[in-house]
Amino acid sequence: MNSALPNIRTCAIRWEDNGIKVLDQRKLPRQVDYHFLTRAHEVAEAIRSMKIRGAPLIGIAAAYGVVLAARTRFAANPSTWKNTIERDLDVLGSSRPTAVNLFWALDTMREQIEPIEGDPFQPLLETAIRIHEDDINANLRIGDIGAEILSGTQGVLTHCNAGSLATGGYGTALGVIRSACRNGLKSIYATETRPWNQGSRLTLWELQQDGIEATLITDSAAASLMRSKAVDWIVVGADRIAANGDVANKIGTYSLAILAEKHDIGFMVAAPMSTVDWDIPSGDAIEIEYRDKQELLKDLYLESGHGIDVWNPVFDITPGNLIDVIVTEKRAIGKPIADQMEKLR
Amino acid sequence: MNSALPNIRTCAIRWEDNGIKVLDQRKLPRQVDYHFLTRAHEVAEAIRSMKIRGAPLIGIAAAYGVVLAARTRFAANPSTWKNTIERDLDVLGSSRPTAVNLFWALDTMREQIEPIEGDPFQPLLETAIRIHEDDINANLRIGDIGAEILSGTQGVLTHCNAGSLATGGYGTALGVIRSACRNGLKSIYATETRPWNQGSRLTLWELQQDGIEATLITDSAAASLMRSKAVDWIVVGADRIAANGDVANKIGTYSLAILAEKHDIGFMVAAPMSTVDWDIPSGDAIEIEYRDKQELLKDLYLESGHGIDVWNPVFDITPGNLIDVIVTEKRAIGKPIADQMEKLR
Repeated sequence: MNSALPNIRTCAIRWEDNGIKVLDQRKLPRQVDYHFLTRAHEVAEAIRSMKIRGAPLIGIAAAYGVVLAARTRFAANPSTWKNTIERDLDVLGSSRPTAVNLFWALDTMREQIEPIEGDPFQPLLETAIRIHEDDINANLRIGDIGAEILSGTQGVLTHCNAGSLATGGYGTALGVIRSACRNGLKSIYATETRPWNQGSRLTLWELQQDGIEATLITDSAAASLMRSKAVDWIVVGADRIAANGDVANKIGTYSLAILAEKHDIGFMVAAPMSTVDWDIPSGDAIEIEYRDKQELLKDLYLESGHGIDVWNPVFDITPGNLIDVIVTEKRAIGKPIADQMEKLR
Repeated sequence: MNSALPNIRTCAIRWEDNGIKVLDQRKLPRQVDYHFLTRAHEVAEAIRSMKIRGAPLIGIAAAYGVVLAARTRFAANPSTWKNTIERDLDVLGSSRPTAVNLFWALDTMREQIEPIEGDPFQPLLETAIRIHEDDINANLRIGDIGAEILSGTQGVLTHCNAGSLATGGYGTALGVIRSACRNGLKSIYATETRPWNQGSRLTLWELQQDGIEATLITDSAAASLMRSKAVDWIVVGADRIAANGDVANKIGTYSLAILAEKHDIGFMVAAPMSTVDWDIPSGDAIEIEYRDKQELLKDLYLESGHGIDVWNPVFDITPGNLIDVIVTEKRAIGKPIADQMEKLR
């Protein structure tokens, strides 16, 4: 599917014959290793263990996971599969808590299941492929709209990886940046994005594959970078956007938004409409995932370490009032974000 | 020397017989490895390669380095040593640029050289030991003054390592925190402090050795931690304080100061008077050290990576107007810092 995209040489997920081929993102950039998944529980495990990550991508993966589940359940018992598949939907839905695209994709697939008569494989596969293609098209549109807003910008900073590796294939934040590069954007900076190093491991690698030069900084250097006037905009993705425009995204996003405000630098969130959760009134109600202390301690302490605790939230909430622009495939909205959210509905 | 200190079980530097024993901080916490240095150029190399680091500590090490240089130069030629030692002072002075304690210690030693007649070893060793002991005493006093200000505080966050490993033996920021623990401070948080991980590798380890519980966070999680109200104060050290109260310290300090202001959390800088550089009018004039890109790329890219650049400043400047309190062994000063600096002179 990615072959149709301009200048994208990395592919995180692809339907192939009887299952999905996914790139193991834990091993990048050292090793480009694809896994072939044919069962729903394998998809759930791949999401939980972060072989695949990125809010839009895990939504797409979950949709394909439902296809795989339906095939297995229908083969086992054609008359009860619509009941038994609920267990698979639960397993897929409990793989990670913060990104809403996962739940959106499962809900979309669930709606398709109800009217199906006979073998569900082909109709569900068509829906999953449509979700995948729609995401790529949304990315391209987000790229166009965002790049228009960045017109004349010399430098941007992005956080985490909201690129082809996090989506159907073009990227949200990195989609905007790719499109802006064609409009003359010169300097791209990326944070390391601790603790998982999505910036250094994935964003830098992804851009390198596509021949786009970028500069890596530590998360802590962002304030100095802004003070140096090297960047005019911060561009990030989102894992969930509340109805009032509060944004859940990778830990450190909230920090960047405060620093951007202090330095009078623009702050843009780029995300597909599937990221907006109208059922959540504000960011306070979004569940934040905490991950294992070993993510920070590994390579440092041979034993887990008596007297050492770790506080490891991997997402944070950026209040809408710190955001200058939210770009979706539908349109962009500006300040005040809370008032403008209605225009996305 | 550290044996006299209460509850400090780690020692970064010690004069022993004919040279200095230093702890190789690059290998912590995996390996506790001491090196024995007997030549000035070995001391300069240990500072440059960050076997020993921390502004007060590299000042102390440089002082001992001058003792070693004088011994060698005097043995080689008792009549020319005061000229030839200048080369050693240059080598020691060019080991790292940002921390002023290094230059302060070299100047202090240079003043002692002039009036010496005969063998300089014993008088210079006495001066170096005095610099070392004075630093420990300054730390203890800073601890008392800072802890008094933190009275009633439940939680603090520190950045980098300004502890026994960074000083003569008690710590500046960690000295304040140690003293505050005896006054009832409950929660200590430490950032990882990329790219060198002084927080996770050194601060957590040092506190663990002394039986003090602490919690590690990523640098990026600091804003969320402040928002959660888990900490009332940020306490950091300093590598150089300009005459107007601007502070050079580990990259990320400036970011924490902005976040603290935004969350109405106190921001304290704890440092000995030897850190104040009255010759520098403001932070803009402080030289910031940039380190090698491999500090961020190692373990990630097998080759240095075409198309990947790294911007790696390892210090930043926090304007005095973001600082609530500067604590030295002389006294503490409060807002407005720029006006209060005269009280430290």
